[in-house]
Amino acid sequence: MQSQWSKYSLVNGEFLPAETASLGIKDLSIQRGYGIFDFFKSIDGKFIFIDDHLERFYHSAAQMHLHVKQRPEELKVLLQALMEKNELPNAGTRITLTGGYSADGYNLAEPNMIITQQAFKNPAFNNIGLKLITHPHQRQLAEVKTLDYLMAIMLLPKVKEQGADDVLYHDGGMLRECPRANFFMVNHHNEVITSATGILQGVIRKQVLKLEINGLKIIERDFSLQELKTCKEAFVTSSTKNIMPVSSIDGVTIGHGQAGQVTTELATAFSKLIAG
Amino acid sequence: MQSQWSKYSLVNGEFLPAETASLGIKDLSIQRGYGIFDFFKSIDGKFIFIDDHLERFYHSAAQMHLHVKQRPEELKVLLQALMEKNELPNAGTRITLTGGYSADGYNLAEPNMIITQQAFKNPAFNNIGLKLITHPHQRQLAEVKTLDYLMAIMLLPKVKEQGADDVLYHDGGMLRECPRANFFMVNHHNEVITSATGILQGVIRKQVLKLEINGLKIIERDFSLQELKTCKEAFVTSSTKNIMPVSSIDGVTIGHGQAGQVTTELATAFSKLIAG
Repeated sequence: MQSQWSKYSLVNGEFLPAETASLGIKDLSIQRGYGIFDFFKSIDGKFIFIDDHLERFYHSAAQMHLHVKQRPEELKVLLQALMEKNELPNAGTRITLTGGYSADGYNLAEPNMIITQQAFKNPAFNNIGLKLITHPHQRQLAEVKTLDYLMAIMLLPKVKEQGADDVLYHDGGMLRECPRANFFMVNHHNEVITSATGILQGVIRKQVLKLEINGLKIIERDFSLQELKTCKEAFVTSSTKNIMPVSSIDGVTIGHGQAGQVTTELATAFSKLIAG
Repeated sequence: MQSQWSKYSLVNGEFLPAETASLGIKDLSIQRGYGIFDFFKSIDGKFIFIDDHLERFYHSAAQMHLHVKQRPEELKVLLQALMEKNELPNAGTRITLTGGYSADGYNLAEPNMIITQQAFKNPAFNNIGLKLITHPHQRQLAEVKTLDYLMAIMLLPKVKEQGADDVLYHDGGMLRECPRANFFMVNHHNEVITSATGILQGVIRKQVLKLEINGLKIIERDFSLQELKTCKEAFVTSSTKNIMPVSSIDGVTIGHGQAGQVTTELATAFSKLIAG
């Protein structure tokens, strides 16, 4: 979903060309995969759900003992400045915070903060759904948006081989999430259900849980692969995908293999929300 | 255990001062924690168990779809050259291979390879043992030496708070490993037991499993926290620690709280092995 990197990035508050900006090899992201991030889009110069994203960013940082020098309001000023410098009102913006330059390659140091942007156009709702394959995996530190995408990227060749678009994790048969998106199923009682535990608390997921649509009950509770087989629709949510239908899971078609009625209704309501 | 970084590092085959060597921020280690490494020591100019380490390094790389440009013999030439450049015959050497400069921050690119050294003196056997605390965690992709130390580093403040030295992972009560060392227990039948599954196949562990000592049965099989409580000795193995006794686990003293007889015998045999 992501396209070109923007011209400038911010590394520890300094504007640097994204092409040449770097971190020293002692940084704990390179040494130990240690760091957190958050990612959000802007539409026509407005960062979408920015307070939710920043709240999660500070939460992730605190969980991992990483101190953020800036207060949220100061961070917003930096984000705005970078958007203007890059002349990119429509972008995906990522704030990464790493474990810093560790003296011994293990213990935490003062974090390094990198802010990068990529041109990104908010996608229109697409009737054609994603093909998912399931894989047993529970993300560690599930509520923290860590740098850890080892399993997801390791699985990419398998996803491609099977003609799929992405992977859907389950833990001992209990549904969890996709590597970069939350997952929802819709059952025949018009219940819209997303897993409650062992997942990243997605910002779009949170907004969908708040939608109010007549005749729909939108809830969070854990459910199994077995229950998933009884669903009539399924979709994923993320900042890049908004609400995107799921057309098949492990080769089995969901509903009619394209966006169902409930998914379309939710997507319409959500589109209004971010346009508003 | 690690001390000062050496003067030079090798980044994609080029000697660069370790102080200023860097990777661009698009590298997948910084973006997604994606990469593998291996670490080994040299004593008086000789890399210890180098073939085992390189075998594991190539195995880790293959599992993660990372291509190593060099054949093992070529890699050994680079290692030797770096050792000479750094004038460090006694060192810990680390080869890191990352996911490379990804165009979209997600899909794999041509890997970046970094070789770093730190001065390191092979430690003499220490009678005083490590204090461990247990924590429920199963490392993902356990047989791959990935960059992922998120849990280990996140737990460091807890380890310190409890006056411990390191953490010992278990998965649903089945013993696994320490973040940077394998774990062994010795029972009252003089069986020396190390977990068989869900662990990194440590190079020192492998050597210990090959030791032949009269009256000792050294085996790999899984065992539980419950069984661990019946042990008379425990120790860990790693390239930096060799064989190091464990004096307590979760505050409960193991044996007499210092190196037991079996641990000392094994450590003596192991010292002869790496001196030979």
